This record gives sequence, C-alpha cells and structure tokens, in this order.
Amino acid sequence: MGQQNLRATAKLHSLNAALESGALQQVRRILNGGLAPAEVAHLIESSPPKVRKILWELIDKENEGEILQDLSDEISAYFLNEMSAEELVDLTSDLDTDDVADLLQQLPERVTRQVLSSMDSEDRSRLESVLSYPEDSAGGLMNTDTVTVRPDITLDVVLRYLRRHRSLPEMTDNLLVVNRNDEFIGTLPINKLLVSDLNQTVREVMTTECQIIPAQMDEEEVAKIFERHDLVSAPVVDAKGKLLGRITIDDVVDVIRDTADHSLMSMAGLDEEDTFAPAFKTGRRRAIWLGINLLTAFIASAVIGLFDQTIEKLVALAVLMPIVASMGGIAGSQVLTLVIRGQALGHISGNNIGWLMNRELTVGFFNGLLWAAVIAGITMLWFNDFQLAWIIAAAIVINLLIAALSGAALPILLKHQGIDPALAGGVILTTITDVVGFFSFLGLATLFYL
Amino acid sequence: MGQQNLRATAKLHSLNAALESGALQQVRRILNGGLAPAEVAHLIESSPPKVRKILWELIDKENEGEILQDLSDEISAYFLNEMSAEELVDLTSDLDTDDVADLLQQLPERVTRQVLSSMDSEDRSRLESVLSYPEDSAGGLMNTDTVTVRPDITLDVVLRYLRRHRSLPEMTDNLLVVNRNDEFIGTLPINKLLVSDLNQTVREVMTTECQIIPAQMDEEEVAKIFERHDLVSAPVVDAKGKLLGRITIDDVVDVIRDTADHSLMSMAGLDEEDTFAPAFKTGRRRAIWLGINLLTAFIASAVIGLFDQTIEKLVALAVLMPIVASMGGIAGSQVLTLVIRGQALGHISGNNIGWLMNRELTVGFFNGLLWAAVIAGITMLWFNDFQLAWIIAAAIVINLLIAALSGAALPILLKHQGIDPALAGGVILTTITDVVGFFSFLGLATLFYL
Repeated sequence: MGQQNLRATAKLHSLNAALESGALQQVRRILNGGLAPAEVAHLIESSPPKVRKILWELIDKENEGEILQDLSDEISAYFLNEMSAEELVDLTSDLDTDDVADLLQQLPERVTRQVLSSMDSEDRSRLESVLSYPEDSAGGLMNTDTVTVRPDITLDVVLRYLRRHRSLPEMTDNLLVVNRNDEFIGTLPINKLLVSDLNQTVREVMTTECQIIPAQMDEEEVAKIFERHDLVSAPVVDAKGKLLGRITIDDVVDVIRDTADHSLMSMAGLDEEDTFAPAFKTGRRRAIWLGINLLTAFIASAVIGLFDQTIEKLVALAVLMPIVASMGGIAGSQVLTLVIRGQALGHISGNNIGWLMNRELTVGFFNGLLWAAVIAGITMLWFNDFQLAWIIAAAIVINLLIAALSGAALPILLKHQGIDPALAGGVILTTITDVVGFFSFLGLATLFYL
Repeated sequence: MGQQNLRATAKLHSLNAALESGALQQVRRILNGGLAPAEVAHLIESSPPKVRKILWELIDKENEGEILQDLSDEISAYFLNEMSAEELVDLTSDLDTDDVADLLQQLPERVTRQVLSSMDSEDRSRLESVLSYPEDSAGGLMNTDTVTVRPDITLDVVLRYLRRHRSLPEMTDNLLVVNRNDEFIGTLPINKLLVSDLNQTVREVMTTECQIIPAQMDEEEVAKIFERHDLVSAPVVDAKGKLLGRITIDDVVDVIRDTADHSLMSMAGLDEEDTFAPAFKTGRRRAIWLGINLLTAFIASAVIGLFDQTIEKLVALAVLMPIVASMGGIAGSQVLTLVIRGQALGHISGNNIGWLMNRELTVGFFNGLLWAAVIAGITMLWFNDFQLAWIIAAAIVINLLIAALSGAALPILLKHQGIDPALAGGVILTTITDVVGFFSFLGLATLFYL
C-alpha cells in the first residue's frame, strides 16, 4: 500500500533516468506533474550545482514560488538573485505572508521595496508587519492568515460565515477570538465548533487557557512551547496584546530541524547548509576552520618544543605523548557535547550546574584511574620502565580531570559571553587538553629524568 | 503579553525556591496545579537523581501517566519499574494507545501481559495491534483513536453523528473514510466539512490524493513525509490496505528531535539521553568509549615507535608531528559530518556520491597546498631547515587528501555494512588520519635524514 509514496519514489527514479539520458521534456513533465513542491526541492538539494540549474529552468513559472520556500536559504537566494523584480512580484503573489517575508529577506533592499510597492495596501501592510520582526523571532515566523471572530456572536453565525467563504487557511485548528480593538481574548477550536450546540455564543465555548506567543519571542523558545503543549498553531500578539498573526507547526518543524542541525554542523566548523555547494565556496569556508585549528596545533607544538631536550634523552616520550593528549580530547568532547545538548534542550540552569560539574569530575577521576592503570601496564610491557609508567598514569589522571572541568565549564562560560559553544567549544577544549596533556606528561618526565 | 508562558516560568521559579527551602507541600501544589505535564517532565529531566525521586513522589496518581509519556525512555523506565502491576493498570487507563504501547515496551513481558489482561477486549486488541509492530516503525508510532466515516452518507449525517459524540480526539484534522471492509479510501478534512454544502455525500467531498503510511515504514521515513507535505495527521494501513490507525504531528516532532539528536550524541560516543544520569551509570558508558579510543591511540603510538631512531636524531620531528595528525583529523571530521548529515537528510545517493567525492578531493588538495605552504613557512622560521619544511608540507598534502577520501567514503561503506556511521565513523577516521599523518611525515623524514 502507500501508493502515494511508492508513486513518488517511482517518479524520482524515472526522473533520474530521464536526466541521465538527456530526455529533458520527460524531466519537465515529471517535475511539473505529481511531485510535491517539497519533493522537487529535495531533488534540487540532492543535485550538484550544474544539474540544479537545469532542473530549475525546467520548472513551470507557477510552481517556482512553492518550491523556493522549501529550498534551503542558500540555494533559494541563488535562484532569487537571478530573477528580475517583475518575476519576483509574480512569484510572491500566491504565497503566504511568512513565506514571502522569508524570500524577501534574502534579497537586496532595492528589490524588496520594488516588490512591496507592487502589492495592494492590505497585503503590503501585513508583509511589513512580518518584516519588522527579526527573521528568527516569533514575528518573523508568523503568518497573517488568521480567521478571527468576535466573542458575542453565536456559533451558528460563525458557521454561516465560514460556509460563505468556502475555504479555511491550511493548519487552521482554531479560530481566533478578538475584541473590537483586535486584542486577542481566546481561541475557538474548530473541533468544538463541530460538536457544540449552535445557539451558544463564541464566548461561552471559547478557550482562554491557551499558549499566546509574544512577537519578540525567539523562535527556539516558540519551538519548545509547541513541543511541550502539542500545538498545531498558536496566536502571535504584540506588546499591547493586539493579535498580529499565528504560527503553524509546519514552520516550527523547520525550526526544530535547523536548531538540531546547527549544533552538529557547528561542532565541525561547518556553517554550510548545502551538501552540494561548489568546491570553491566549500573550500574557502573550510580553509578558515583549518587555519584556526592550525593555530591551536602550533600552541601544542610549542609546548612540546619546551621539552625537546627531555625527548632527545628518552624518545619513548614522543611515542607515548599522543596518547595522553588524545584521551583528554575524547573525554572532554563527551562532556562538552553532553552540556551543549543539555543547553539546547533547556535542561541546564544555575540550579543544577554544580551537581553536573561534580558528577563530571567524579566520572573523570574514576575513568582517569581506570585507564591510567591500563596504560601504565601496557607501558611497562612495552618499555619495561617503571618510572615512565607511573608518569604517564599521573598525566592521564590530570588530563582527564582538566578535560571534565573544561568540558562542563566551557559551554557555560562561552554562552555567558554570547559566543556559540557548539562553534568555539571544541577548538578551545582540544587546545586545553593538548596543552595540559603534553605539559603534564613531558613536564613530569623532565622533573624525574633530567 | 504571553501571560501563560510568563505564568509557567514564574511557577518554575517559585517551585525551585520551594524545593530548596524544603516546602514540599508548596512543591506538590505547584506540580499538580497549572504546570503542563510536559513542563513537569522537563523539570524532572533537568533535576539530579535525588530531586527526581522527591518530585515523583509528590505528583498525584492521576497525573503520572501524562507526565511519564513526556519523559525520556530511560527515566520513565526507571519510574515504571518501581510500580506494581495494579498501579500500571490504573496509570494506563487514561492514555492513548500509542502512549500505552510506548510505556509497555519498557517493561518486562510478565508485567506487560498482566496489564493487557486487565483491559477490556476492544482496548486490548487495539493495543496488541500497536505492539505487534516495532517501536520505531509507523505501526509502533500510530494511535488507534481514528474517527471513521462511510463514503455514502451525507455531510449532514456526519455532523449530527459528531454532535452526538461531543468530542473529537486531539489533532483530528481529518475524518478517515473507510469502506465496509475497513479499507482506507480517503480523508474528509474537518475544514471542508465546515464550509461545504451539507447535502453532499462524503464521497463527493473527500480527498483521495493523500499520504498513506504503511505500518512497516520506518519512523524516520514517516517524519520525512510529514515534513515534505506539511501534515498534521496521516492514516496508517496494513499490507492489505486496511486502516489500522493514524500518526499525528506531535509524535512525529519527537521523532525529528530524537533523530537529529542521535547524530550529535553518537559522534561523541554518547548513547545516553539523560543529561543528569548518576555518575556510576555515566562513567561505565564513557569508559567503554575511552577504551575503544585508547586502542586507536596505541595504534598511532606504534606507528611513531617504528621511527624512534629518526626522532632521536631530529627531535623537531616530535615537536611538529602532532600538527600533521591534527590537521588531517580536523579536515576529515568536516567531510565526515557533512556526509553523515547528508545521509540523514536523504541527500546522498548513488547518483551524486561520485560528484561529492570529486569535490572533496579537490577541496582537500587545494586546502592541503594552502596550509602546507603556511606550515612550511613557519617551520623554516622556527627550525631554519629547508628539508624539514618540504617534508612536513608533503605530509600535510598527503594527509588532507586521505582525510577527504576517508571522510566521504567511510559513512557510505559503514552504512552499507549496517553500522551506524555517526557512532563508528569518527573513531575510524581519526585512526586513519593519525596513522597516515605520522607515517607519511616520519617516513619521509627517515628516507631523507637517515
């Protein structure tokens, strides 16, 4: 079963075959018939740059808008910047306000103004209201397609009003109840409208216990509220309580996906959201990250350089020293990742950071003892040098303790300074564990061998 | 505005204050009045083990079920295992089938059977239908609270039927249309029901172009379909097309969150979902990961050991060698993370892996050249040794090429073997870049200095 999905997969296969054989008319037919906009967007994102351009050319004008909003910002910006202002006006005429706002935010201001001035005044003022909030706030995420009702009318009147309009915006699970000043006072769930006595007034049936989103709220905070209260949509209000629009779960899902993605990508120094970006673009971004890491690698080398005479006397130190640094790096990264994720989920606060730090030091100490013993044993077998064995054991315990401390404290300190822990944490952490690892191991060796 | 959220935050603050001052009656009052189940669950997850037990004791019996389903599996399993079978029966009586199934899957089979036998036969057969599918499949994710209608009745009859029942399950955006064999044939959107002429039949108004989820489908695939088609709910059918239940977006959001979380945590060797797990539990898991990494560190050491005579002659090699290994590790991790994420998003397939490999080798080669030149320059300044400078430059280029190749190929090969690339990829990659880095640098030095 699941004919729809099987059909889509089959279409994707035949499309790939058609692309490879150069049957462009067939590709055009598949792209514009039957594949959902999000499926076409996924196909474009999964293609190298040249194929992308071919696919885009083959898409009918009237489908472009829907597909653009499903593409990642980077790719949609590329296509948008190739368009004339007239094409943009056509493109945006069928889209939701929040989606038009997302697209406009990727364009130069001159073009944005041109698109805005082409709209009728109602659409323009709606769009300007969305554009006046940051893209990553509730205001930037909201849509203005609310269906509002007054509290003092009966459900019967509401139903007749809806029947006259013949369609409701997608993801409408609630009608929004406002007073004569457009201030939000409650929601009328569609499902209640269906099952309630039609002679009741909206006020009698409406819910006032609902989640109201202030327009300034950060989008990640919005996502948490949607997750905790299992919402499909929620009203957005300004500082005075005036209803501005609503946020729907489909846009929140994108926020959740992007937020989770962000930590993973940042920890590897990747800010690219595009798997198939051209080599030059990718290479330039990666080069910067490699440069930053080179700096930290030279710091570690300088520490080793301090002890070159000790290493000359006992070359086994050079053989074993990467083990001390590496164990510290691994142990520290585990703590760092755990804390960064705890921060993202909102688990970590002033109340429990003390407990967490305490646990990590305990874990670091006992794992330090365990693996110090194993490493000391192997060192004895390999080099038959008792002094070397206890020196590396001591260095391991020291480095694992420092790794636990840094892994737990760094994200807290960085966040406090307004620096993204996922981006900067790993580099700083491995610099610390490298320096401490090499310094403690080679330093102890210098004390006892020279 | 956003009184609800401000109120919840204020409650959390006063709860923490009450907890610290030991005012347990006050804590009980806050926990059982006003905080949403998901907020209480979040509070428990953000607390160290001892506080968790106190909070749990203070929660009223009738709220336990809702809260349990919002806790992570590990924590809910802990509380569930402390309960008697009778308590479990009480607990599950108010929950949705999918949530009961989730809870039961964490219990020993003996207890599960006891709970099942306490139910009436309709509930039991529903639950058994959910339990017969793997937890991470559409069948395990589905709920059985569908509202079904027949195609040949009029909308008027449907509305009267709904009014008689007075309530619809949460997240009901569609009624599901089935024939007399319970086979799914289409959906009747609630919103269409509201705005359509009531004399029409269900068949005339219903949508047949909808996403149907087969019960065997993997939950990550389900999440992709929900994301691509902006769904609130979707019907689940068995192999014969018979309607089994429906999946709702709130459960899909959890899947999306968990999937994204999984890559991040696995790459650090963390399988724990619990930020505040007790030290012993955490320590044991971390120890295994450190042990695996120790093995790879010793492999790198063994490679260095091969060249101890060369290092004895020129100790600068020991000072510089971590740079070669580290640059390879960083460059490789970037490629690895990009490909693992591309796999998770479904971007990477047989069609484009060749292009991707090609780009990564290009990027690796040019970044290799760039940073090789910089490192050679610094080496000249530091050690004034031209031969050493070009040797380290050559080793850097070699290691960055191997890093690009391994970073791109490893996730593909591992996934093909059924091994999770996020878990195993990083360890194998750094083993490769360490070994290649040390071997190429020290090997070239041995050739030209000895």
